[in-house]
Amino acid sequence: MTDTDLQSYKPELPSVMVDDAVRAALREDLGRAGDITTLATIPPDAMANVIIASREEGVLSGMPLARAAFRAINPDIQFETLIDDGDTIAPGDVVARIKGRARDVLSAERVALNYLGHMSGIATATAQFAAKITHTNARVCCTRKTTPGLRAFEKYAVRCGGGANHRFGLDDAVLIKDNHIGVVGDIARTVETARAYVGHLVKIEVEVDTLEQLASVLPAKPDVVLLDNMDAATLRKAIALVKKLNPSTKTEASGGIKLDTIAEKAETGVDYISTGWITHSAPVLDLGLDTSIV
Amino acid sequence: MTDTDLQSYKPELPSVMVDDAVRAALREDLGRAGDITTLATIPPDAMANVIIASREEGVLSGMPLARAAFRAINPDIQFETLIDDGDTIAPGDVVARIKGRARDVLSAERVALNYLGHMSGIATATAQFAAKITHTNARVCCTRKTTPGLRAFEKYAVRCGGGANHRFGLDDAVLIKDNHIGVVGDIARTVETARAYVGHLVKIEVEVDTLEQLASVLPAKPDVVLLDNMDAATLRKAIALVKKLNPSTKTEASGGIKLDTIAEKAETGVDYISTGWITHSAPVLDLGLDTSIV
Amino acid sequence: MTDTDLQSYKPELPSVMVDDAVRAALREDLGRAGDITTLATIPPDAMANVIIASREEGVLSGMPLARAAFRAINPDIQFETLIDDGDTIAPGDVVARIKGRARDVLSAERVALNYLGHMSGIATATAQFAAKITHTNARVCCTRKTTPGLRAFEKYAVRCGGGANHRFGLDDAVLIKDNHIGVVGDIARTVETARAYVGHLVKIEVEVDTLEQLASVLPAKPDVVLLDNMDAATLRKAIALVKKLNPSTKTEASGGIKLDTIAEKAETGVDYISTGWITHSAPVLDLGLDTSIV
Amino acid sequence: MTDTDLQSYKPELPSVMVDDAVRAALREDLGRAGDITTLATIPPDAMANVIIASREEGVLSGMPLARAAFRAINPDIQFETLIDDGDTIAPGDVVARIKGRARDVLSAERVALNYLGHMSGIATATAQFAAKITHTNARVCCTRKTTPGLRAFEKYAVRCGGGANHRFGLDDAVLIKDNHIGVVGDIARTVETARAYVGHLVKIEVEVDTLEQLASVLPAKPDVVLLDNMDAATLRKAIALVKKLNPSTKTEASGGIKLDTIAEKAETGVDYISTGWITHSAPVLDLGLDTSIV
Amino acid sequence: MTDTDLQSYKPELPSVMVDDAVRAALREDLGRAGDITTLATIPPDAMANVIIASREEGVLSGMPLARAAFRAINPDIQFETLIDDGDTIAPGDVVARIKGRARDVLSAERVALNYLGHMSGIATATAQFAAKITHTNARVCCTRKTTPGLRAFEKYAVRCGGGANHRFGLDDAVLIKDNHIGVVGDIARTVETARAYVGHLVKIEVEVDTLEQLASVLPAKPDVVLLDNMDAATLRKAIALVKKLNPSTKTEASGGIKLDTIAEKAETGVDYISTGWITHSAPVLDLGLDTSIV
Amino acid sequence: MTDTDLQSYKPELPSVMVDDAVRAALREDLGRAGDITTLATIPPDAMANVIIASREEGVLSGMPLARAAFRAINPDIQFETLIDDGDTIAPGDVVARIKGRARDVLSAERVALNYLGHMSGIATATAQFAAKITHTNARVCCTRKTTPGLRAFEKYAVRCGGGANHRFGLDDAVLIKDNHIGVVGDIARTVETARAYVGHLVKIEVEVDTLEQLASVLPAKPDVVLLDNMDAATLRKAIALVKKLNPSTKTEASGGIKLDTIAEKAETGVDYISTGWITHSAPVLDLGLDTSIV
Repeated sequence: MTDTDLQSYKPELPSVMVDDAVRAALREDLGRAGDITTLATIPPDAMANVIIASREEGVLSGMPLARAAFRAINPDIQFETLIDDGDTIAPGDVVARIKGRARDVLSAERVALNYLGHMSGIATATAQFAAKITHTNARVCCTRKTTPGLRAFEKYAVRCGGGANHRFGLDDAVLIKDNHIGVVGDIARTVETARAYVGHLVKIEVEVDTLEQLASVLPAKPDVVLLDNMDAATLRKAIALVKKLNPSTKTEASGGIKLDTIAEKAETGVDYISTGWITHSAPVLDLGLDTSIV
Repeated sequence: MTDTDLQSYKPELPSVMVDDAVRAALREDLGRAGDITTLATIPPDAMANVIIASREEGVLSGMPLARAAFRAINPDIQFETLIDDGDTIAPGDVVARIKGRARDVLSAERVALNYLGHMSGIATATAQFAAKITHTNARVCCTRKTTPGLRAFEKYAVRCGGGANHRFGLDDAVLIKDNHIGVVGDIARTVETARAYVGHLVKIEVEVDTLEQLASVLPAKPDVVLLDNMDAATLRKAIALVKKLNPSTKTEASGGIKLDTIAEKAETGVDYISTGWITHSAPVLDLGLDTSIV
Repeated sequence: MTDTDLQSYKPELPSVMVDDAVRAALREDLGRAGDITTLATIPPDAMANVIIASREEGVLSGMPLARAAFRAINPDIQFETLIDDGDTIAPGDVVARIKGRARDVLSAERVALNYLGHMSGIATATAQFAAKITHTNARVCCTRKTTPGLRAFEKYAVRCGGGANHRFGLDDAVLIKDNHIGVVGDIARTVETARAYVGHLVKIEVEVDTLEQLASVLPAKPDVVLLDNMDAATLRKAIALVKKLNPSTKTEASGGIKLDTIAEKAETGVDYISTGWITHSAPVLDLGLDTSIV
Repeated sequence: MTDTDLQSYKPELPSVMVDDAVRAALREDLGRAGDITTLATIPPDAMANVIIASREEGVLSGMPLARAAFRAINPDIQFETLIDDGDTIAPGDVVARIKGRARDVLSAERVALNYLGHMSGIATATAQFAAKITHTNARVCCTRKTTPGLRAFEKYAVRCGGGANHRFGLDDAVLIKDNHIGVVGDIARTVETARAYVGHLVKIEVEVDTLEQLASVLPAKPDVVLLDNMDAATLRKAIALVKKLNPSTKTEASGGIKLDTIAEKAETGVDYISTGWITHSAPVLDLGLDTSIV
Repeated sequence: MTDTDLQSYKPELPSVMVDDAVRAALREDLGRAGDITTLATIPPDAMANVIIASREEGVLSGMPLARAAFRAINPDIQFETLIDDGDTIAPGDVVARIKGRARDVLSAERVALNYLGHMSGIATATAQFAAKITHTNARVCCTRKTTPGLRAFEKYAVRCGGGANHRFGLDDAVLIKDNHIGVVGDIARTVETARAYVGHLVKIEVEVDTLEQLASVLPAKPDVVLLDNMDAATLRKAIALVKKLNPSTKTEASGGIKLDTIAEKAETGVDYISTGWITHSAPVLDLGLDTSIV
Repeated sequence: MTDTDLQSYKPELPSVMVDDAVRAALREDLGRAGDITTLATIPPDAMANVIIASREEGVLSGMPLARAAFRAINPDIQFETLIDDGDTIAPGDVVARIKGRARDVLSAERVALNYLGHMSGIATATAQFAAKITHTNARVCCTRKTTPGLRAFEKYAVRCGGGANHRFGLDDAVLIKDNHIGVVGDIARTVETARAYVGHLVKIEVEVDTLEQLASVLPAKPDVVLLDNMDAATLRKAIALVKKLNPSTKTEASGGIKLDTIAEKAETGVDYISTGWITHSAPVLDLGLDTSIV
C-alpha cells in the first residue's frame, strides 16, 4: 500500500484564524466611511437573494472565508453552502445561496469573492498539475513562496486542489541548502548537527544539486532530499542512488516545474514535485455574485 | 495638455503601514521556533554579504517592504537600494546589496522576496498592458479585485507599473451598478441621490452596459461612466455620446481586457481601461538572493 | 433640483468597526480587575431594568455603539432602541430600554454614555449650525480636525446632525494649500499635476486666500475651491468669479465660522461651510442612565 | 502642611502607550493611499522647516504625542521641544521647531495638532477652573467621563492643567452609588462589604445626596465621600459633619460645576471638586503649524 | 466586626478580557495548519462526549477561560459547568461536561486544560497558605510577581483561593521603597509628596526594614506599611508601634514566606502577608479530559 | 556518533517576537497611569546604575526579554549583558549592568525580572532533570503543557536548560493518541492515514500504553513512539521490541516523571523523556535588581 492509496479527509481551517482574517479584510475594504454607494442608494430594509456562481471550470476553495465575510457583516445573514471546498466546479455551478439585508450582502461581496477567487485559483492550478501525474506515485506540493499574510489559506487551497503541503514556515521543518553547510563544512555532518539541534519531532530535508552531493548526504539519513534543477535522466539516477543507499529517504524534485514538463519528472519515480507557481502565480478562478434585491 | 503629459512623482508607501505589515509577515514565517535550519547550522557570529538580483525582465516594486523585512529582523543590517521601485529591470540586475549577521539575513530572505516577487509581478503586468496603449490617451487602471490584506501594496505596485488607481475601497468613491438603481428607480436620479449623500469631495461613477443606459445617465453629470463589456464599435459610439452630452465625464472601459485586445479598446478614445487581472492574476516576477557567508 | 432637495438615507456605521472600538473602550474602562464596585456590592443574579434618557435638547448619535457596549459585556442583555440616531430629542426622552444582569449593565454604562454624549454633542452642534442656514443652499461640513481614533464616528455624528462630510483622511481627496504649490510653482499647473497623479476617482480641492489666486486656479477646473478667511463681501465676489469662469466648481468657505456669523457667510451663495469646531470643540450632550435593580 | 503645599513633579506618559496610540492615529489619517496631496505635489527631496505656534492663551499638553507623530513617520525628523507640557502659553509662542523631509512633516502635521489641540484644551479648561479656587484648599479633579480610547491622555492633560485625577477606570477604586446599596441594604455595611472584597490597596468612595446619608455612612470610615449636587450651604454642613464624625475622610463635591460657581463651592472647605466638563466638553486650544519648504 | 467577618462575593472576570486571551492562546496552539492529528484521523462528523475531571485535591479556578476556549473553536459546543471557580475539588470530581464535534473538542482541549491547571494551581497554593492562618485575622495576598500577560487571571485565581489582591500594576497604588526616598530625603515627607501627586483615590504603602524606619514614617499616615523581612518578634514590635502611632495604618508582612512559617507570622497580628510564591511558583493542579468519541 | 555527541548552538529568539511580547507585558504593568510611585518621588533627571544579580544557583534564561523591556521603555538605556542565556549562575552572580534615567529603569524592572525569573526557573528545572541522566543517552524534553501565551519563550527556556523540544503546537507534528484511532480502527493503518494526510515534512508519533499496542504500531514505521506510564521493566521490553521491529523509530517515555525516578527510566535506553512539570510547575529562579540612584 502506498501513501496515495489512502483516502484522506478534506482539510479544515480553524475558525479563530478565519474570523480574524476576514474581519481585517472587511475593514480594509470598508475603510472609514463604509460602503457609501450602498448607503446612498439602497433602502435600509431592502432584502437581497444572492447566489455565488462559478464562471469557469476548476476546484473550489475558500468557502469558509466567504461565509465568514457575510456573517461578520451581519450574523443574521443566511449563507447556504451548496458545494464544498475541494469539489470540482463547472461554469454555472451555484456554490452558495445567500439571503439577508441588501446593504449587508453587497458590503461583504467583494471580500468574499476575492478570497474565493484567489484560493480557488490556487486549488485549480494545483489540480491541473496533479492531473498530469495521476499515472505516477508522485504528488504535487507547495513551497514557502506564498503571498505575505495568506500562507495558511494558500496552503489549505493547495490541499483542496489535491496537492501536499511542504513546511508552513521556517520553524516546522529543517531545509538545509548550500548556505547552511559552511559551518560544519561536511554535508552529512551538517545533517547530524541539525538533527541534534531540533530533536525528534522535526524532519530534515537537504537540497542537493548533483549526484555527488546526494551520495555524500545519504549516509546521514536525511528524511527528505530535495533534488534541485535536475533533468529527468539525472533524477532517475538520483532516485536509484537513494533506493540503494537509504531507501527510507523521501525524494522531492524542484526547479522550473511546468504543466507540460511535470509528467516527465514524475515518471522518474520521485515522491514529491514542488512548485512555487501554484501559490505565487496561479491566476484567479472567476466566480461571481448574482443579486436580486427585493 | 492632457493628464498624461504631466510627469508625476513616484508613489510612496507610508512607513507606518510598511512596518506593521512586514512584522506580521515575518511572524507568519518564523512561527513559534524561528528559523531552525539557520539556528542549527550557522554560527551566531557569521556574517553575510548578499545581493538581490532579478532573473527576469520587468518593473521593480516592493523595495521598501524588502528593506523593512531585513531591518525588522535586525536594525543593524545594512540594506543598500541600488534600483528604485518603478524602474525597469533586466535579468542579472542587482537591485539591492545587503550586509549583516548571516542568521538575520537568511531569516528575512523569503519574506522580502515574497513581497518583491508579488509586487513586481503586478508592476510588470501593468507595464505590459500600458506598453500596448502608449499611442493612445488611455491609461490602464486597477480594481478592488485584490488579495485580501494587500490592497494598498498592490495598488502601489500598479502605480509602479505606470497604471492609475481606481478607488481603494468601498468608501472613497461611489460606483453605482445595476443593483443600486432599484430604489430611486431612475438611473439619473440615483446619481443625484448619491451625490446628495456623499457631498462634494467624493466622485461618482456609474456602470452602464448599453448606449441607452448611457444616454439616460449623462444628464446627471456623473464624474465617470464605466462602459462594461462593450466591443470597440459600441465603445466608440459611447464615447461620442459622452463628448456630445457631457464632455467633462471621464470614460472607463472594463470587461475581459486582455494583452492582445487592450489596444483596440484604447484606440476608441476611452480614458481609462480597468482590469482585475493585473492584481489578481499577474504571475510573480522572479527575483532571487545570492548569498556569500563569511 | 439642487442636491439638498433630495432626501438622503441616514448614514450607517459598519458593525466590524463598531464592535472593535467598543471592545477596546470597555477594556480601557474595566482595566485589569473589572468593575470592582459592582462585583463587591451587587449579587451575581440581580437583574436590572434601565433606561437611557436625555437631559437636554439635541440630536441623537451613537446608539449603535451604546448598544454594542452592552452586548459586548454580555450578549444576553436586551437593548431596545426607542429613538434612532439623527432624531431630535428633548429632555426626558427615553432613547433606549435595557434589561439584563445588573453587574453587566452597570459595567457597560459609562462606555455607552461616553459614546452617546460625545457623538450626540457633535450631532447637536452640527444641527445648530445647520439650523442657521436653512434659508440658503449652503451645507455645514466637517474637517480632519477630529479626535484621534474617533474620526469615523465623529464624521458619522456630523451626518446625524445634518452636516456633510469633508474628506475622511489624507488619502481620499486632494486638498492643495500654499505649502503644496512650491514645486510646480504655478497654481493651475499644480492642480493638473495632482490630477495626473491621482487619476479619475479622486476629487481635487484648492485652498485660496485671495480673488487673484482664485482667478488663477479656476482655469484648471478644480472640483472644489476652499475660500479661506474671506469676509462676506469677498466671498460674494469669489462666488461670482466661479460662476463666470468655471461654474461646475463647488465652493467651500472656511475660517473662524461661528454660530452667529454662519448665516452671513451662507447667504453669499457658497455651497459648503466647513468648521472644525463641530468635531473638536462641541460640548457633550447630557444623557443619563436610570437604573432599577431587582 | 497640607497636600497642596508640596511641589509635585510634572506627570509623564509611558512611551509604550504614546507610540502605539500615535501609530494608530497616523494610520487613521493616512488611510490606504497615504497623503496623496503631498505625494502629488511635493518633490521627494524637498525639506521643511516648521514651527508649531500657539494662537491662543492656555496651558500646553500633548507634546510627547506630537513629537511621536513626526518621529513615527520618519525617525530622521528633528523635533525640538521649546515649551513643556504644563507650561502656560500665549498667542505667538513657538512650542516646537521641526525639521525634516517636507512630505514627512506634512503627513504628520494634522495628527500632531489634533492631539495638541485636544489635550491643551483640556489642560487649559482645567487651569481656568483651578485659577478660580487658588484661595482655597480645594483641587479640581476629573471623572470617568472621557472620550473612549483617550482616557490616559485626557487624565494626563488634567494633570498638566493643575487638576487632580479621579480613578482611571472601574478597577482602581470603589465608588459606591445608590445602585450599589440595594444588596446589603445598609450603606455603612455596604462600605464594609466592599472593603472586605477589595482589600487594603484600594480606596473606597461613597456618593451621598443628603446629610442623612452622609451621617449614616461616616461610621464606616469611607476614604472619600462624594457630595453630589449639594448647594454651598449644605456642603458646609456636610463638611462640618465629616470633621466631627470622621475627619480622615476626604470630601469631594460634584454636580453641575461651572466656572462662575466653583469658587463658592470651594470656599466651603471641600477637598476636591470634580467635573466631567473639563474632559468631555472643553473646546480645543488653537495651535497651528507654520511651514517653510525649501 | 472585622473585614473577614463579611462574606464577599466570588470574583468575576470580564468576558471581553477572557475572549481575547483565549483566542490568542488557541492561535498559539493551532499555529498555521491547525490540529493536524485530529484532521487526519477523526471524521468531520464524529461527535464527542467529554468530561473534565480533577486528578488532585485543590481549589478550582479558570472555568470561564476553559469554557471560552471550547466556545471560541465552535459556538455550538455545549459546555456545562458542574463546579464553580473557588470551590474545593477532590480527585475524580467532574468539573465540566462538554459535548460537540470531536474535532472541535479535541482542538480546544489543551488550551482549556492549560488555563485550568495553571490557575487552579495558584488557587490551591493560595488556599494552602490561607488554611494555615485561619485562626488569625491575617490574609494571604499576592504581589506583582506574576507571569507576563496573565496578571489579571493570576490575581483572579488568588481570589478564588481565598487570598486578597495586592495592587494590579504600577498605576493603581503607590508602593514606596528605599529607591524612592532619595529625592525628598525624608521618608515621611516622601509619603506626603506622593500623596500630593496621586490625589485622593490612590492608597500609599511604604516598605520599611526596621522599627526606626517605621517610627519615622507613621506620622505621615501611610495607608499601609510593608514590613519586609522581619522575624516574628520584630513584627510584633512593629505592629505595636503602628497601633500606638497610627492605628488606621494597615500592616503587611513580606519576605520569604513559606507554608511552614506563615502561621508564626500571622500570629503576630499582622493584617496581610504577601508572597510572590503563590503566583510565580505554584505547581499546576492536575485536571484531565476524558473523551468518548462516537 | 550519537546525536548528543554533537555540540549544538544555543537557541535564539526572533526579535520580532520578543519586542511585541515585552511591550504588551509593559502595558499590562504600567496600566493607564504609569509608574505613579516613581513619577511622584523620583526627579525626572535622576540617573540609575543597576545590576541584576542572581540569588540562587541555576541556569539563566530570558536575557533578551529583560534587555528588550528596558529598551522598550527608553531606547537610551544602556544594558550590558554579562552572562548569557544557557549559562550556569550562582548566588551573587551579576548577569547584567543597566544604566539610564532612574524613572525608566524602575518602570521596567518588574517586567524584566518576571521574565527572567520564570524562564530561568524553567531552564533550571530542566537542567536538574538533565543532570540526573547524563550517564545515559536519553534527553529530557518538554510538552504542550505550557502557560498560555508563553509557549515559544518556555520552549526556548527548556533549550537553555539543556532539554529538547517536543512539538510547538498542534500543527507541526502528529501525535496519535487513543482518541484518534477510532476512525480507521486499526492503529497501524491510522498511522498510514495520518502520513498520507500530512505529507513528507511532518513527523508522526504514536502513544501506546502496552507492549501489544507497540507491536501493532511498529510495522507502520512511526517516527516516534510515546511509551506512556510504563515502569522501567516494561520500558526495557518496549525498547527491545522497537530495536527488533523498527530500529529507526525513536522512543519517548512519559508519565509522572520525577527528579528521583528519571534516572531509572533513562537507563532503560529510551531516547527521550518528556515531562510537563518543567514548564508548568517549575518554581521561579530568584533574581533581583540592586539599584543606586544618583
